[in-house]
Amino acid sequence: MPAPTKRDLISIEDLSTEEILELFARADTYREDLHGFSQVCNGLILAALFFEPSTRTRLSFESAMLRLGGGVITVPEGSSSSGAKGEALSDTVRVVGGGYSDIIVIRHPQDGAARVAGRYAEVPVINGGDGAHEHPTQTLCDLYTLWRERGRLEGLDVVLCGDLRYSRTIHSFAYALGRFRANIITVPYPGFEMPKYVLERLRRNFGVQATNASLGDLQDITDPEGGSAAAYLTASKPHQQALFPALTDRHLDRIDAIYMTRAQRERHSGESLKGYPVLSGKSLQAKMFENTRVMHPLPRLDEIDHELDKDPRAVYFRQAELGVPIRMALMAFLLGKIDLKAEPPLPRARDLYVSGHGGFICRNERCITNGDGKRHLSHEFFDLSDDAPLLSCAYCGKVARPEVVGDRKSMHFGPADSTWGRGLGPVVGEFFASENEARAAGFQPRNPD
Amino acid sequence: MPAPTKRDLISIEDLSTEEILELFARADTYREDLHGFSQVCNGLILAALFFEPSTRTRLSFESAMLRLGGGVITVPEGSSSSGAKGEALSDTVRVVGGGYSDIIVIRHPQDGAARVAGRYAEVPVINGGDGAHEHPTQTLCDLYTLWRERGRLEGLDVVLCGDLRYSRTIHSFAYALGRFRANIITVPYPGFEMPKYVLERLRRNFGVQATNASLGDLQDITDPEGGSAAAYLTASKPHQQALFPALTDRHLDRIDAIYMTRAQRERHSGESLKGYPVLSGKSLQAKMFENTRVMHPLPRLDEIDHELDKDPRAVYFRQAELGVPIRMALMAFLLGKIDLKAEPPLPRARDLYVSGHGGFICRNERCITNGDGKRHLSHEFFDLSDDAPLLSCAYCGKVARPEVVGDRKSMHFGPADSTWGRGLGPVVGEFFASENEARAAGFQPRNPD
Amino acid sequence: MPAPTKRDLISIEDLSTEEILELFARADTYREDLHGFSQVCNGLILAALFFEPSTRTRLSFESAMLRLGGGVITVPEGSSSSGAKGEALSDTVRVVGGGYSDIIVIRHPQDGAARVAGRYAEVPVINGGDGAHEHPTQTLCDLYTLWRERGRLEGLDVVLCGDLRYSRTIHSFAYALGRFRANIITVPYPGFEMPKYVLERLRRNFGVQATNASLGDLQDITDPEGGSAAAYLTASKPHQQALFPALTDRHLDRIDAIYMTRAQRERHSGESLKGYPVLSGKSLQAKMFENTRVMHPLPRLDEIDHELDKDPRAVYFRQAELGVPIRMALMAFLLGKIDLKAEPPLPRARDLYVSGHGGFICRNERCITNGDGKRHLSHEFFDLSDDAPLLSCAYCGKVARPEVVGDRKSMHFGPADSTWGRGLGPVVGEFFASENEARAAGFQPRNPD
Repeated sequence: MPAPTKRDLISIEDLSTEEILELFARADTYREDLHGFSQVCNGLILAALFFEPSTRTRLSFESAMLRLGGGVITVPEGSSSSGAKGEALSDTVRVVGGGYSDIIVIRHPQDGAARVAGRYAEVPVINGGDGAHEHPTQTLCDLYTLWRERGRLEGLDVVLCGDLRYSRTIHSFAYALGRFRANIITVPYPGFEMPKYVLERLRRNFGVQATNASLGDLQDITDPEGGSAAAYLTASKPHQQALFPALTDRHLDRIDAIYMTRAQRERHSGESLKGYPVLSGKSLQAKMFENTRVMHPLPRLDEIDHELDKDPRAVYFRQAELGVPIRMALMAFLLGKIDLKAEPPLPRARDLYVSGHGGFICRNERCITNGDGKRHLSHEFFDLSDDAPLLSCAYCGKVARPEVVGDRKSMHFGPADSTWGRGLGPVVGEFFASENEARAAGFQPRNPD
Repeated sequence: MPAPTKRDLISIEDLSTEEILELFARADTYREDLHGFSQVCNGLILAALFFEPSTRTRLSFESAMLRLGGGVITVPEGSSSSGAKGEALSDTVRVVGGGYSDIIVIRHPQDGAARVAGRYAEVPVINGGDGAHEHPTQTLCDLYTLWRERGRLEGLDVVLCGDLRYSRTIHSFAYALGRFRANIITVPYPGFEMPKYVLERLRRNFGVQATNASLGDLQDITDPEGGSAAAYLTASKPHQQALFPALTDRHLDRIDAIYMTRAQRERHSGESLKGYPVLSGKSLQAKMFENTRVMHPLPRLDEIDHELDKDPRAVYFRQAELGVPIRMALMAFLLGKIDLKAEPPLPRARDLYVSGHGGFICRNERCITNGDGKRHLSHEFFDLSDDAPLLSCAYCGKVARPEVVGDRKSMHFGPADSTWGRGLGPVVGEFFASENEARAAGFQPRNPD
Repeated sequence: MPAPTKRDLISIEDLSTEEILELFARADTYREDLHGFSQVCNGLILAALFFEPSTRTRLSFESAMLRLGGGVITVPEGSSSSGAKGEALSDTVRVVGGGYSDIIVIRHPQDGAARVAGRYAEVPVINGGDGAHEHPTQTLCDLYTLWRERGRLEGLDVVLCGDLRYSRTIHSFAYALGRFRANIITVPYPGFEMPKYVLERLRRNFGVQATNASLGDLQDITDPEGGSAAAYLTASKPHQQALFPALTDRHLDRIDAIYMTRAQRERHSGESLKGYPVLSGKSLQAKMFENTRVMHPLPRLDEIDHELDKDPRAVYFRQAELGVPIRMALMAFLLGKIDLKAEPPLPRARDLYVSGHGGFICRNERCITNGDGKRHLSHEFFDLSDDAPLLSCAYCGKVARPEVVGDRKSMHFGPADSTWGRGLGPVVGEFFASENEARAAGFQPRNPD
């Protein structure tokens, strides 16, 4: 039965660092005796709602629930769901979470869909991947693998290689590495560098400093020109400056892990993948890779040579295997079947801005507030304002800066970053992308010319 | 294990009124402790054969079986079934009901498919919706909800609103309301009135009287012009005349429930849905709606405003939730795991007419005897003759009047409603739609001109 | 838990004759009390990987696992699998067989796919049908049915009727009949005779002798012209000559069973099926069919009249029913939950030839080494050489004769059937289909002109 106050896992940030480490320990227990815990969730039901295909993730969750002694109901593809009849996701999860099941895992093509599910379902909801937003159990599994292989996370030097632009998995893993104070070396396929918004979030939330780097030996693992795009991201306390300007200054003599990703082909239509990096025994001959662990979220295409599978440094199949016990631990926890000593994460002390009629809307076209929930979800944002107003969509997390703010009482508007504007705050204030939008919503300029 | 004589639920009429009420009581027990009955069906298997998509119904059944401790095998869509290789449904259910499973729920696009499944499977069969024919567990769930909300069914005043023409759910619910002596007020979307054959069956089977009505306050719940099509259907003893000509004469001062339906878009291609009624807090402000329960079979499109979800009168999510315990009760009963004190319905004392070569065939194009079973099912009809011969398809229930009847011994034919014709009966008689058909089957006129 | 050395069932030859008979006895036990063994596989998980649709086979396996008390995870169609993202089957099964599940059943469109799965998965793998290659559990079920109906297999006279050319089921059943020393009478739909390679394998492996036959009474079961293509295949000790030249000489006075198959429509595009044999009560009136059992793997199209279903000689629904207990026995065995006294089959004493760069490749276009595994599987063959070199693909079993062989040390090539060539053997030798291929791989003629 869910705990009195239900917990969801929509983002990896929904778990505290200490909770994550406790879940690792619990997963170890399950892993050592995979068939020994089939009474833990007896009589409980997991609903696996997969509105886009993801066999591996689905099977991993279903297996984990069965190993805990529970049952599973499944929507294996979106095509056969009521969604095809036009039902809103919020309705679907209210029904499925109302008596049908005791916990829900959801996979959905729209960013922020899992947050909607968590809000409307009465039972715990796990995000199994929502659009380009988050995939926290993959991240849990990746961290767990690295932790098991290395015994710790802090201070590790981890290479992220391949398509760093479109891979949701890479982004989530990067945030988690930053949080655990591991260092990141990015080795992107040229043209597919880590996006700016990811680097900004790494800096803002975890104080991670980015520096371009000439990578020397790392060239082995990519094409001759590829190394030039590499960068070094140092985990440090927020606002502490990076102590070295280039990677080589740090006498990097060993790489703890390389996390390789496939090209997200479905988003590369038309673009050639010629020269995409390929890991093989040959590309890992340098001394610094002697003890490196090669990780991959799978499925793998050609970016890791099959011949490497037998190399003891290849841990990607072990990584997949660990997905079951870590998901067992997660579900047993969310269902109230195990207790953790650790405290949950502190509630965010951020103000919430609920957009009124004509007010600011999320700029992410793939956000569920602009998709499935367009007709009934309000646009809500966390106020992250620093030097200037900064809004983060409460569903998809997309960050944007409104230019204009209005006073809901006086119906006047002015620049959002003015002293007057910043004084309004997200309760009285109504934000807009432009003056035109403010006027269209019936607001008048505060100081008309 | 099924009882020695297996019971199916193809139509809501397969359960006696007393059995239904006992199932409600049992469902209440299950509902109060949803996790407490996971030993009831241990080791038993439900086969969920969904030859057309219906996620909600399927998940509800699967959840109910898992909550009872049983297992589930599923055909989630018709596309992957042997049906795609051309196998007859009767073969499929003989196989699936022969050792593979202990009970079957079937969803099928053709009218009467569930009756075929019930005839050929050795295990109990539940109709999960067959074409436009029946969907009895939805009706059970609807009745159960109304019964719980109101404490009784008899004498309730229930509004049926929206698309009353194509909604199988509405038709089945109307029959059930008639049987339990509730009154029905129809508020159709203009052009989508309750079909004549439904009204006739209500009159014939339950003595329900229909009157046009001017609805006054009910206009609030629909568009300005919509109210004119409303009608009032009074449950009464058969052949007892309605006592009031118009709704307003009855001083209808409260509506017990409004049952709203979505437009069956898949059958409205090309027709505009402009002006389709939309329920909202605003449309339910009249005094008569003060304590009304708003029901909906879901999925909901736009016909109920999302803002109404928080209104205590909105019970549609509760209604969906009750689908699990009522299906638990039903399956436990059909599997012989609980006994009911009530008697089953009396067997129908109707003669069966089995059509011979060239004889009468069902006029319903979507009937399974004209579809999947065209090559091997015989056309069979219950003889409902009143003033004139009347045949009801034993599979889809479609009623038709044959014009001609032949004598299988003398090979003569004559008018079906003649004294001679009516004297033949459905064993000696062979029915035809026309004289030409009778001649084509080798019959000669009895009194040639 | 799998036994220390895991066993797969890829081909029916992976079980010894004695093991098969013991499994029949165990299946009988399960069949008599289908609900009495729900503790056998508690906590164990079957992964049903169906990369092409086959509802019946899938449901049969899932039901068997549930009846044993285990759980099931399913990929119901290839479309939703990671395969759609381009993942190699070998990766998929390594993941699914690594912690996700305890046993795998796989259905795949490519010949030899099940052998790949068996090689790469850590858990036991059952072939649920791989392309045109094998479908051993169907064969087990067919044999079990015949054994139960007749009390023995040796010496039975079994008619195989219909499409004998494309039916994988027929071919596997024929091999099994040969192995158990039953006699086969082939009654093909003209143009769809049993292929030569099947007849050759029957002769080579089981000493089965083929004779054309004039079939007399058997004409009843087919079209007037059809009988002319019939043949009689006699089980005998290898290299023992058939003792009678024609069927009628053997005074065949009773047929033990007729195994009917549907036309494999998906492979007959464009070809008419007019005159395809149809079994009915009428076609089985002759004295020799008095006690014949009619079998069919289902789904049935029109090749067996529905009216025959009630005939006590029709056993095809019983045959389907037996699929569950025999699969229960098989899985309980492979999972180490029951022990068999019988010895496993002797390991094949055949040399393995692993093709090097440019060497011999499997000639079967549909073989997985030319499909899913093209980029990472090596071409491997068992050396069946008799009078001349003969290679059997280690995955799909396709047999081919290479014309040329090279010496991997000297890099010379010569005719494969020369004394020199045959002396090289499959370790030193590199085989080629032609001299051109040998040259392309860098080999030189041994005795240049």
